[in-house]
Amino acid sequence: MKALQYRQIGGAPELVSVPDPEPGPGQVLLRVTAAGVCHSDIAVMSMPAEALSFPLPFTLGHEGAGTVAALGSGVTGLSVGDAVAVYGPWGCGTCAKCAQGKENYCLRADELGIRPPGLGADGAIAEYMLVDNARHLVPIDGLDPVTTVPLTDAGLTPYHAIKRSVPKLVAGSTAVVIGTGGLGHVAIQLLRAMTPARVVALDVNDDKLALAKQVGAHETVLSDAAAADKVRELTGGLGAEAVFDFVGAPPTTATAAACVAVEGDVTIVGLGGGTVPVGFGAIPYDVAVTSPYWGSRGELIEVLNLARAGAVDVHVETYTLDEAPKAYERLHDGKVNGRAVILPNG
Amino acid sequence: MKALQYRQIGGAPELVSVPDPEPGPGQVLLRVTAAGVCHSDIAVMSMPAEALSFPLPFTLGHEGAGTVAALGSGVTGLSVGDAVAVYGPWGCGTCAKCAQGKENYCLRADELGIRPPGLGADGAIAEYMLVDNARHLVPIDGLDPVTTVPLTDAGLTPYHAIKRSVPKLVAGSTAVVIGTGGLGHVAIQLLRAMTPARVVALDVNDDKLALAKQVGAHETVLSDAAAADKVRELTGGLGAEAVFDFVGAPPTTATAAACVAVEGDVTIVGLGGGTVPVGFGAIPYDVAVTSPYWGSRGELIEVLNLARAGAVDVHVETYTLDEAPKAYERLHDGKVNGRAVILPNG
Amino acid sequence: MKALQYRQIGGAPELVSVPDPEPGPGQVLLRVTAAGVCHSDIAVMSMPAEALSFPLPFTLGHEGAGTVAALGSGVTGLSVGDAVAVYGPWGCGTCAKCAQGKENYCLRADELGIRPPGLGADGAIAEYMLVDNARHLVPIDGLDPVTTVPLTDAGLTPYHAIKRSVPKLVAGSTAVVIGTGGLGHVAIQLLRAMTPARVVALDVNDDKLALAKQVGAHETVLSDAAAADKVRELTGGLGAEAVFDFVGAPPTTATAAACVAVEGDVTIVGLGGGTVPVGFGAIPYDVAVTSPYWGSRGELIEVLNLARAGAVDVHVETYTLDEAPKAYERLHDGKVNGRAVILPNG
Amino acid sequence: MKALQYRQIGGAPELVSVPDPEPGPGQVLLRVTAAGVCHSDIAVMSMPAEALSFPLPFTLGHEGAGTVAALGSGVTGLSVGDAVAVYGPWGCGTCAKCAQGKENYCLRADELGIRPPGLGADGAIAEYMLVDNARHLVPIDGLDPVTTVPLTDAGLTPYHAIKRSVPKLVAGSTAVVIGTGGLGHVAIQLLRAMTPARVVALDVNDDKLALAKQVGAHETVLSDAAAADKVRELTGGLGAEAVFDFVGAPPTTATAAACVAVEGDVTIVGLGGGTVPVGFGAIPYDVAVTSPYWGSRGELIEVLNLARAGAVDVHVETYTLDEAPKAYERLHDGKVNGRAVILPNG
Repeated sequence: MKALQYRQIGGAPELVSVPDPEPGPGQVLLRVTAAGVCHSDIAVMSMPAEALSFPLPFTLGHEGAGTVAALGSGVTGLSVGDAVAVYGPWGCGTCAKCAQGKENYCLRADELGIRPPGLGADGAIAEYMLVDNARHLVPIDGLDPVTTVPLTDAGLTPYHAIKRSVPKLVAGSTAVVIGTGGLGHVAIQLLRAMTPARVVALDVNDDKLALAKQVGAHETVLSDAAAADKVRELTGGLGAEAVFDFVGAPPTTATAAACVAVEGDVTIVGLGGGTVPVGFGAIPYDVAVTSPYWGSRGELIEVLNLARAGAVDVHVETYTLDEAPKAYERLHDGKVNGRAVILPNG
Repeated sequence: MKALQYRQIGGAPELVSVPDPEPGPGQVLLRVTAAGVCHSDIAVMSMPAEALSFPLPFTLGHEGAGTVAALGSGVTGLSVGDAVAVYGPWGCGTCAKCAQGKENYCLRADELGIRPPGLGADGAIAEYMLVDNARHLVPIDGLDPVTTVPLTDAGLTPYHAIKRSVPKLVAGSTAVVIGTGGLGHVAIQLLRAMTPARVVALDVNDDKLALAKQVGAHETVLSDAAAADKVRELTGGLGAEAVFDFVGAPPTTATAAACVAVEGDVTIVGLGGGTVPVGFGAIPYDVAVTSPYWGSRGELIEVLNLARAGAVDVHVETYTLDEAPKAYERLHDGKVNGRAVILPNG
Repeated sequence: MKALQYRQIGGAPELVSVPDPEPGPGQVLLRVTAAGVCHSDIAVMSMPAEALSFPLPFTLGHEGAGTVAALGSGVTGLSVGDAVAVYGPWGCGTCAKCAQGKENYCLRADELGIRPPGLGADGAIAEYMLVDNARHLVPIDGLDPVTTVPLTDAGLTPYHAIKRSVPKLVAGSTAVVIGTGGLGHVAIQLLRAMTPARVVALDVNDDKLALAKQVGAHETVLSDAAAADKVRELTGGLGAEAVFDFVGAPPTTATAAACVAVEGDVTIVGLGGGTVPVGFGAIPYDVAVTSPYWGSRGELIEVLNLARAGAVDVHVETYTLDEAPKAYERLHDGKVNGRAVILPNG
Repeated sequence: MKALQYRQIGGAPELVSVPDPEPGPGQVLLRVTAAGVCHSDIAVMSMPAEALSFPLPFTLGHEGAGTVAALGSGVTGLSVGDAVAVYGPWGCGTCAKCAQGKENYCLRADELGIRPPGLGADGAIAEYMLVDNARHLVPIDGLDPVTTVPLTDAGLTPYHAIKRSVPKLVAGSTAVVIGTGGLGHVAIQLLRAMTPARVVALDVNDDKLALAKQVGAHETVLSDAAAADKVRELTGGLGAEAVFDFVGAPPTTATAAACVAVEGDVTIVGLGGGTVPVGFGAIPYDVAVTSPYWGSRGELIEVLNLARAGAVDVHVETYTLDEAPKAYERLHDGKVNGRAVILPNG
């Protein structure tokens, strides 16, 4: 079959021919219907050899959806032809975190050499994808795989971040979303669906702020040095009960710290290298600052339920498998509008 | 001044002339702008003498809003002319419950003889109202007191009930509202604003079901012996994650128990005398059944914030103080559409 | 191998010879070191044929511990010789409940015909036990399997019940344990380890009350019609913040409802057929009454951690596999002191 | 009466004669039985004039206990002679935070010029103390005021910090306490009473580590550059689920960040000027870092309940009012063992 692989450090993704995978005991083979292209793939392909904790080559794509093509021995509860999405942050399945479905925080993944598909294990940008365990599949019958597949990361990651703050986002509260691109424009929709909070969107780009308004932001603010003050003005001086930073660069983490309210939450999702310093007097009292990673299996089920209810609408542009290298080029050049999705059998 | 009082057991409310109240230390005098008329007043006026735990006469009205007319000595943080609503379930202010703002569950109210206004203490259906402590007032500047005053009970009570279930009302969940009258039609709006749950409304009355749809219910079901089965059908057999029963009569509590999901919540708000029996095998596993009373001060602030955001719209019909006895007659006869509100100085 | 089976409706457990099981893909074979004997086995063996939802015969024992004897194909993360306990309430592993480790509330178990070992599937009272999936095993290295095996049910069930109430069991609160036998005497120890609450134990039997004191109860009260009043006296009239009823018969559920505080929890664990009616005026405000079943995988890991910390000490009496029928006789006759444990290879 | 005052910037506390205070409406006069001396007083007295947000002079002492000497008009529910402790972080009583008893986070205190007693308003180190509102008093009948008075800050502050982390401090978890002095040695006791966590204490001082062991720490570790590694060793590499830093200086905040587990809590209580930087890759995933201030009224009631249950034992040394200046000297010189308490009428 054809697969898009990352084959040598610093190289571009290559479309290659690889043997058709076959499912072993407990495994499931998917015929891929859709696979998402993500900035973090580019981040991984920019790492020097010594920073990479797994060997090359591997097939790209950590957002995957497909139909069940074959079941390994011992798999029950699934049938050939079932439409499913892949839960990406694979774990051991048995440690204290995995026992709660938090495989994104598996305590034994490193020790056991377990890697997410597309980030070490072979991923979804191929005609077929081997899923290591049936528990990593979630039904998506009735959903369009093309607009659904980004929810496995670009939906799940903000969902997990927002879910922590739901108890603080009561009536009368304000949520700030910094960076209204791929994850951010989904975050705005999730906040509107899940909470009664007023949503204030920040971005450096007017087009993205227009999109933010369109998908539900109550207010938009240009993300510059004055942004935190504007958020304080909008909140009668109190600040926002929750701030989600999908950029995570030094200017945005500084804004996040400066516009949060007493007892609020700051969540740094973006990989921009910025940090929020927390200590007595350094930030309002009892603000809880955190930086999460992806989400749990249970949360993915909930995100997909939101999609079923029509509450999230991901903007996508689609590519065939042959065009996949071009999708990465366009993403690298900042030209992708919303999320790029590959249709390997389309 | 003129006041509407309940003066003798079994009697009708009477409009009488009483001395103008004057605020003592820590107290606040309100010029009443609006006062709500509630079914529970009629319940109290139907009680025999031995069931009533406080003496007659007293001024009716436990939903009150007004402008500050005079401040007792020692009151700070308020000014004459401020527009406020009254938090009704007065408590001692210092016990373990009151320390958390849960004056509705004050541990010392009985011992100290503290009664809510309009339910033992003099209430809001009068030209002026004496509020025992400034902490029982919440600002309503910018809100219309007429549509806001019902929120102090008909809004706060469902808000408190719903807030318990918010963690269970995740994406993909279902909430059932039984009885879509005064409290129920507010509950539907609160559920829509506060959660991503699908809302199913049950009532015996088609007009009320039409109102339920209009204010946001996704589905409506006639509240009869088949209703629970219909809810199960709508939920793929699983049942509803939360059921709010604003009737509380034996047929509706039976429906509530029969349509709730494993690990769901059943909340009995209505005073209809029904109960849900809980025990091993009597109800799905880990369903939590409860019957609350009113809400906390912090929750009232949140409800009013929802009103400020335009998320709740209470249907009201208005009366002058002279017409107040008629409002009670119409309520008793089931003729009030939404909530009856008295404008004592209107 | 030898196995203790329930073979015909109403019959006594029989020690029989059955083929040695072999692990299929994803399965694990255990050499059983210890297996618990439970009242609910007797309840199942008392059911008429039409009430039983699975076919006979099957091997008894839903509390099991052993060492890994063989791994089915595809099993990773476990080695032959590992000491493990079995998580009993098996589920599908993929539904919304299982995704959170709540296999005790699996949404698809009925549909897929999944039964717990010893309660439909073959259980632990045999030389070898087949475990359907590696995720159902929890490491117990460093623990004595004999005193540990009861924790998989008699520990996990009260742990799950108590965990719900931890937020209410703050300093100054009171927890009531009704029935201080197998589960109850563990519950007392869990409450002492997990919360600062004062623990009041109720039982009809003076010996059991003596054991309750010995394992940590602050107060003991004879469980009769006056018990609720005594609990109210001990709590200054307020009642207990949490009541755990491990009997669940009409007199104890009545006591539970009568001695709980406003905003408290009542949890009915026992299968005695009693219920607590919940409705306005029927129970103190905002008491949450529930009836749970077993516990989650994550909770089992936590219970075993408590055992590692020396915080729980289960009283056991041991039997060989040949003596297992006698263990059931003695349990049936109320002669077992603590928990009966079979050592099939002992 | 005599009072210990801070009278001029940079000056030492002076014992002076001031007029006897009289309670106005809603206020309460206490005859002080005990008043705590705190490091933060010294911090305030070290501030330059421009950093101080309130005028001099004022009476010192933000930890106070006494008996009710006189009631202002309008005060109910209290009697002359009642033994009480003072809740120190006074707020407006009506804003959204105060409505929940979180007066430590009052939204209007600055605007209204409200200051805590001993930190702007007149405090407890005097023969009599004026309390602005009866709600700021909590009964301590049956408790020794001398060992109880430090709980109003040195108990309440760690209690509030720990309470946030209770859900993470399940069986098998580890809590780290950095700095085992005044607040830290109480924190260890609170952790032991409130959770099943293993407690690891860090300090630079062997005597304090000995005290830490004595009051319940399971392990003690010298607080140096290797401390975080030792905590990781003690936790099988996983780190601690909660870290409480009562020093808050750069070396200890670095240790805190380095020894916390994925999804853990870091709470910086100490005013040592250190911070923990939070961002993607800067700290384990989903660690929530915060810096709180004092605690709520409801929490103070709970702390005092722990004292009633005998679960906390504060080490104190006592002084007369005349010796109070010496107590501050000894505290400044690091010579106080535990907490210094003034007995103004002793």
